[in-house]
Amino acid sequence: MKQPTLVIGSVAFDDVETPFGKRNNALGGSAIYFSLSASYFTNVRIVGIAGSDYPQDAIDLLKNYEIDIDGLEIKEGKTFRWGGKYHEDINFRDTLYTDLNLFADFKPNIPDSYKETPIVFLGNIQPALQIDVLNNMKKPSFVALDTMNLWINTAKKDLLKVLQKIDLLLINDTELRELTGELNLLKGLQNLHSLGIKYVVIKKGEHGAYLSHQSNLFYVPAFPVLQPTDPTGAGDCFAGGMIGYLATCENFDFNSLKKALVYGAIMGSVCVEHFSIDGLLNINENEIKNRFQKLHDLVTI
Amino acid sequence: MKQPTLVIGSVAFDDVETPFGKRNNALGGSAIYFSLSASYFTNVRIVGIAGSDYPQDAIDLLKNYEIDIDGLEIKEGKTFRWGGKYHEDINFRDTLYTDLNLFADFKPNIPDSYKETPIVFLGNIQPALQIDVLNNMKKPSFVALDTMNLWINTAKKDLLKVLQKIDLLLINDTELRELTGELNLLKGLQNLHSLGIKYVVIKKGEHGAYLSHQSNLFYVPAFPVLQPTDPTGAGDCFAGGMIGYLATCENFDFNSLKKALVYGAIMGSVCVEHFSIDGLLNINENEIKNRFQKLHDLVTI
Repeated sequence: MKQPTLVIGSVAFDDVETPFGKRNNALGGSAIYFSLSASYFTNVRIVGIAGSDYPQDAIDLLKNYEIDIDGLEIKEGKTFRWGGKYHEDINFRDTLYTDLNLFADFKPNIPDSYKETPIVFLGNIQPALQIDVLNNMKKPSFVALDTMNLWINTAKKDLLKVLQKIDLLLINDTELRELTGELNLLKGLQNLHSLGIKYVVIKKGEHGAYLSHQSNLFYVPAFPVLQPTDPTGAGDCFAGGMIGYLATCENFDFNSLKKALVYGAIMGSVCVEHFSIDGLLNINENEIKNRFQKLHDLVTI
Repeated sequence: MKQPTLVIGSVAFDDVETPFGKRNNALGGSAIYFSLSASYFTNVRIVGIAGSDYPQDAIDLLKNYEIDIDGLEIKEGKTFRWGGKYHEDINFRDTLYTDLNLFADFKPNIPDSYKETPIVFLGNIQPALQIDVLNNMKKPSFVALDTMNLWINTAKKDLLKVLQKIDLLLINDTELRELTGELNLLKGLQNLHSLGIKYVVIKKGEHGAYLSHQSNLFYVPAFPVLQPTDPTGAGDCFAGGMIGYLATCENFDFNSLKKALVYGAIMGSVCVEHFSIDGLLNINENEIKNRFQKLHDLVTI
């Protein structure tokens, strides 16, 4: 079973420097990372915006991965651009600039052919737009959402509103603290469940990830990587692996979510091994299976 | 099978302040934490020094836990004292003072009745003293060692010498970086194995712990704690749980070490839930079993 999966998010050029090298004009953006990652599991439909500077090669690449681009608006103007520099300890980075360009006034337009998509991933955009997208969908069976500190701090009311409508929230440990005011992971999770959110995933980067459902907790370590080269997009690839796998599941019970979390960790590791989207282009299904087994063995007592 | 286990380390009074309260003159020190933790699994023999200010109650307490105190020297003078204050994020602390007192000139004296102890834990003291203790033992079957950044920076030659003679090194992730110069966990571990160390445990506090043996890697998350109250001694309790369990094993293969690591994580969690040694006094074997099952379930896909 491969249930189609819709993603809304950014389409970007990234200028990235890490201790292992430099890349300019690299393909990036949450919707691109998510789509390529999820494409190993299911058929992805992308909603986003790019400028007239976006290369045809990139569009052809998405098509090669059977990603539906009917919802990818190409408009006169410049594509979103982000620049960042990672520290020697690659877990830390400085944002050098964020040029929103066309993304600043992005109003998502959901093609009719997308409106019955059963699985929806609301990438990290303004909560008001996330609500808008959801209002345009016809009863999706599973909705996941990513957000960031900017929206927690500037649009909390809208964010809390959209959180009522989703099945799964994916955030990192810092965002959990900002969103709930709780330093303690378990207390923060309790707080989110009390808002009515069924499943919560807390991404902790190299320290793995938690999946929480009421009193059930599951943990997956990060897949150990010998040379993490560029962490940009790892969180989106994590989400892509997780939601992509879920789209192949008959139901969305805790056991399905657990396996999905492991695929998330795997696709995150694939991402960080290379610059930009290169890791996602070099992987194959055998290597994904192989990493699943390795993660299983890593924690099996 | 309960193989006797020798520990050498500090015996201390701690003055501790955390966001959850304050304790003065609390019983502490690596040898005390280790002994009480390991006592749930095996018979512990302690080597250490305390002053004439050390209370009889504390000595009686150790006896109640069947800890052999023949090697606990009580000398005229003051016991080692440490003061620390934890931040709101309890993973961080400031040391307020360290009064070594009698511990400054401690020369471990191994009683004859201890010399054939099969399991040895060399707690965090000068590497030269660790070597000295080992030279006094008659062919122990398993030797584990803890150390700290102070010895990595000031006594590396002696440290590298004693590392040749042990079976298991327990350090934290910062110490791994300082000892090997490698930022990457896997590379740091490879480096340590190339020195001839068979097993390495990397403690990452709330982020769990790794066990490494050549190309085998095993990971255990921290046991999730709703209210960590005082992390002082958690690393020593981790070591106590791990080595204490190993002392019940027929052999020291990777499978035994894996289970031992899980017991380490459990006893670490027991420690942080209460001030000083209180958590260790409140636990029982059923709760330890219960936590083993919970940690198993937490990671089982």
